[in-house]
Amino acid sequence: MFKSVGIVARFDKRKALKLAEETAEYLAKKGLNICIEETLKNKLKGHWNFCPLEKMKTDFIITIGGDGTILRTCVAIPKPEPPILAINMGVRGFLTEVPPEEAFKAIDKCLRGDFITEKCAKLSVTAGDKKLPDALNEVLITVDEPVKIMYAKISKDNEHVLDCQADGVMIATPTGSTGYSLSAGGPVLDPSVEAFVLTPVCSLSVFRSIVFPAESKISVEVLRPKRVLVVVDGAYRTFLEAPNTCVTVTRSRNETIFIRFRENFYNRLRSRLLFRGVGGKA
Amino acid sequence: MFKSVGIVARFDKRKALKLAEETAEYLAKKGLNICIEETLKNKLKGHWNFCPLEKMKTDFIITIGGDGTILRTCVAIPKPEPPILAINMGVRGFLTEVPPEEAFKAIDKCLRGDFITEKCAKLSVTAGDKKLPDALNEVLITVDEPVKIMYAKISKDNEHVLDCQADGVMIATPTGSTGYSLSAGGPVLDPSVEAFVLTPVCSLSVFRSIVFPAESKISVEVLRPKRVLVVVDGAYRTFLEAPNTCVTVTRSRNETIFIRFRENFYNRLRSRLLFRGVGGKA
Amino acid sequence: MFKSVGIVARFDKRKALKLAEETAEYLAKKGLNICIEETLKNKLKGHWNFCPLEKMKTDFIITIGGDGTILRTCVAIPKPEPPILAINMGVRGFLTEVPPEEAFKAIDKCLRGDFITEKCAKLSVTAGDKKLPDALNEVLITVDEPVKIMYAKISKDNEHVLDCQADGVMIATPTGSTGYSLSAGGPVLDPSVEAFVLTPVCSLSVFRSIVFPAESKISVEVLRPKRVLVVVDGAYRTFLEAPNTCVTVTRSRNETIFIRFRENFYNRLRSRLLFRGVGGKA
Amino acid sequence: MFKSVGIVARFDKRKALKLAEETAEYLAKKGLNICIEETLKNKLKGHWNFCPLEKMKTDFIITIGGDGTILRTCVAIPKPEPPILAINMGVRGFLTEVPPEEAFKAIDKCLRGDFITEKCAKLSVTAGDKKLPDALNEVLITVDEPVKIMYAKISKDNEHVLDCQADGVMIATPTGSTGYSLSAGGPVLDPSVEAFVLTPVCSLSVFRSIVFPAESKISVEVLRPKRVLVVVDGAYRTFLEAPNTCVTVTRSRNETIFIRFRENFYNRLRSRLLFRGVGGKA
Repeated sequence: MFKSVGIVARFDKRKALKLAEETAEYLAKKGLNICIEETLKNKLKGHWNFCPLEKMKTDFIITIGGDGTILRTCVAIPKPEPPILAINMGVRGFLTEVPPEEAFKAIDKCLRGDFITEKCAKLSVTAGDKKLPDALNEVLITVDEPVKIMYAKISKDNEHVLDCQADGVMIATPTGSTGYSLSAGGPVLDPSVEAFVLTPVCSLSVFRSIVFPAESKISVEVLRPKRVLVVVDGAYRTFLEAPNTCVTVTRSRNETIFIRFRENFYNRLRSRLLFRGVGGKA
Repeated sequence: MFKSVGIVARFDKRKALKLAEETAEYLAKKGLNICIEETLKNKLKGHWNFCPLEKMKTDFIITIGGDGTILRTCVAIPKPEPPILAINMGVRGFLTEVPPEEAFKAIDKCLRGDFITEKCAKLSVTAGDKKLPDALNEVLITVDEPVKIMYAKISKDNEHVLDCQADGVMIATPTGSTGYSLSAGGPVLDPSVEAFVLTPVCSLSVFRSIVFPAESKISVEVLRPKRVLVVVDGAYRTFLEAPNTCVTVTRSRNETIFIRFRENFYNRLRSRLLFRGVGGKA
Repeated sequence: MFKSVGIVARFDKRKALKLAEETAEYLAKKGLNICIEETLKNKLKGHWNFCPLEKMKTDFIITIGGDGTILRTCVAIPKPEPPILAINMGVRGFLTEVPPEEAFKAIDKCLRGDFITEKCAKLSVTAGDKKLPDALNEVLITVDEPVKIMYAKISKDNEHVLDCQADGVMIATPTGSTGYSLSAGGPVLDPSVEAFVLTPVCSLSVFRSIVFPAESKISVEVLRPKRVLVVVDGAYRTFLEAPNTCVTVTRSRNETIFIRFRENFYNRLRSRLLFRGVGGKA
Repeated sequence: MFKSVGIVARFDKRKALKLAEETAEYLAKKGLNICIEETLKNKLKGHWNFCPLEKMKTDFIITIGGDGTILRTCVAIPKPEPPILAINMGVRGFLTEVPPEEAFKAIDKCLRGDFITEKCAKLSVTAGDKKLPDALNEVLITVDEPVKIMYAKISKDNEHVLDCQADGVMIATPTGSTGYSLSAGGPVLDPSVEAFVLTPVCSLSVFRSIVFPAESKISVEVLRPKRVLVVVDGAYRTFLEAPNTCVTVTRSRNETIFIRFRENFYNRLRSRLLFRGVGGKA
């Protein structure tokens, strides 16, 4: 089924590197073509084929890390995205599926086609006249320094919705609704809801979040300050300068596809909420 | 077009009664069959045909009051519901369309078919083995006395979602998302989102709200206490006793239809938020 | 040191009754005069001296139950209140000190004076012209039925503070700030802060809570509806009717004294927050 | 009474510069020694004595701008701070007292001693082993880039309070409790409460804010990431690197003194909340 595989791993964690190495060896023995992300060059034993994420064209991708590793992979890989098998080696692994000790068992299942796929809607983001990478989790438009205030006008399909004064404004997908958006006070969107959620960050406004249908075009026009920061999935950052400080969001044609072995959204949600409840152990 | 009309009005407000009287006279002159809600009997001059809401079968209905008047009308009238022209004579008139001084102009437009309709999804609510009235705004399951705690298990299509400890749990439609649900910290749902939102009231849980697709079956199984109160649209109340304390919510086949003269959801939302912002004047 | 003791226990829990019995026997052998709360009459073996809480004049009191048992004890016992040794036999035992298996060890320590006391400020509450019981946790002024709205004017020392529209308004002590007030979105007050906190329940107002100095007089004047419910510590309820719907709160001269064996406010807070985080097990 | 005066103004607003000029001329005629903040050099007509804020030693100071102008003045001027007459020429003027059209009337009152003073507690902040400027509003410890997570251990007088996972942690004075702290979900502290309030920013924790007595020592020990940003009053910024990422806050010996013409905290609060309610006009 799968003939080629890309491997992406956290490079700041000894254990992740070791598992990346073992995974590569395991897959090589199975006869797959392997491409490893360039940043791991010189960090792995053995002779491997390295390439940047932007050029990683394989049948599927294995990520070894946390949500951050997945998000930066999705931001950069060529579209349409191949399915991702996400092995957890991070602090936060909400999007991940497999604990490290089950990595090889999962890979075996994967290779014999014994899995389901979860397709996640993404946001297409235009800032000023510039197309940014699609967002799997969220796009954040925010002041460039803390403790400043941003004034923004929010529209849906060119109709004025609300103005807001806040640190920033975030638009999240259902996938992202359990991440940073949740910390900012946003609702959880069930994965099968066809919608996006806009949430102001640290706002004094009486409204908390607005849930828009996925087919709408949402615009955030920054009235002040003249320079703001746009962050896609915590992985891509760019500054906007007036007068090009309008960010427009629609549903992307691309989606991210996760390899899953069971339906378990709410199981994962409960674990996540419990884990972050008081945070006794970081 | 319309040949018969029902009139419902607040009976605790002199002005509303007066407008009801004038409206009836105006419509009688136009030759319409008029049916007035029974509670106004003996409060209006003239000889009118009175009937209870449960028997009001007319081509359309005029409500004169606030959201409360609309909600109790929708709870009680025979299904399918005729369209409603809502004249504002209440404190909160989020669902209403027409200020009282424009009542006759609006009625004229109405009679010549010069309007659009807004169709609002409703919730079908089953409590234990008992079918409750459909909800236009929200259904609330709550403790029967303040400062008690309710423990509930929330499921979606028989899959366990989360447990929660709170004063109560509320499930709202997009229409209801700007009402009581908003006070409880829920998000605003754009009217075209096909979803419902569940929000715990005064909960210590880390999650705030969950947005479910409209086609799902949401269950709230009350584990404790043994007796809880269920309120539909603030207009219908019933107590549940263990072991029949499970409330199930799906999308209703019925919908409520409002007569509108322009698309203006976000205009109304802005007014509403501004009005309730600080509440200088109630 | 202590010559007489009162015993109060949950009467709806077999285990609590059993422990009450054993405790009474244990203390009787030690030669203390024992008074048991009247509601336990006919539920305990042995011949005991029963009296209502209102007449329980002893050197100290042992409560066997949860926070609810403590709160109803404090509302009713004669003032000034004797110290309370709180043995946990409830779901929520934030105010309690001792797990049931350590009850006799704790009693021994108590009898030989090996303890510290924690003094908790209480609220003096006047509703209309009627003095209500002092509140150890909080006083709540709320609508008499869910899904109604209360309009209230809040003042501090006769100075207008804010108006608010909400389900209700709550004023909590530092002790109460970790209870119902926290669920309503209020801040935790460190036990040594000389302050009270007012929090609207399910409000759309932009403010969440206001922290007032303990020496201030806080008034909540209900403008609408004409009838509201006032609840002290979840244990005492009364209805107010217009025009006597103004509730005034000051610091009480009385305080509640807990017998503690170590300083551990934040230990208890962490346990409580963790426990209620997701609420997997009620 | 006052013989010398310092003038500080926004230099990015024509109107503020003009009023600064007129104010200087007006005060010169009255015979006061005038010192103008250095950043206004070359922007004002006339020959004036300019000096940096750090050297501005005068009997009182007039600020012409918004809260930002006041905050950067208080951060920099020599201690003990002279009283401040704050003329509003900013978007947010919560701390300001006088609208621009009443500037000269206010100055006259000031010069003849016809005013009251409002003394505001400040925070003494130590980051690692470095003393930072005192905070009038708040100190924020936060990640150096948005969408990262900070893990921190919070202590009070060396006792462990709670751990938290958030964008950042903020500690605010009563003065600051109506500013950025309010946006982050913190309570309003009445000006006479002797307390500070700690609020996590965009946290998933179940607690919102903790109110500590003003005499306590609050520590925020950042466990991760290795580099964080500390911001005092939005006006002073510094980065901390592990292992010096512990920030300690106590009450400062310094205070900021405002010249006021009437007691009006809650008047100002109501205006502020109304203004920011929906934010129709930025």
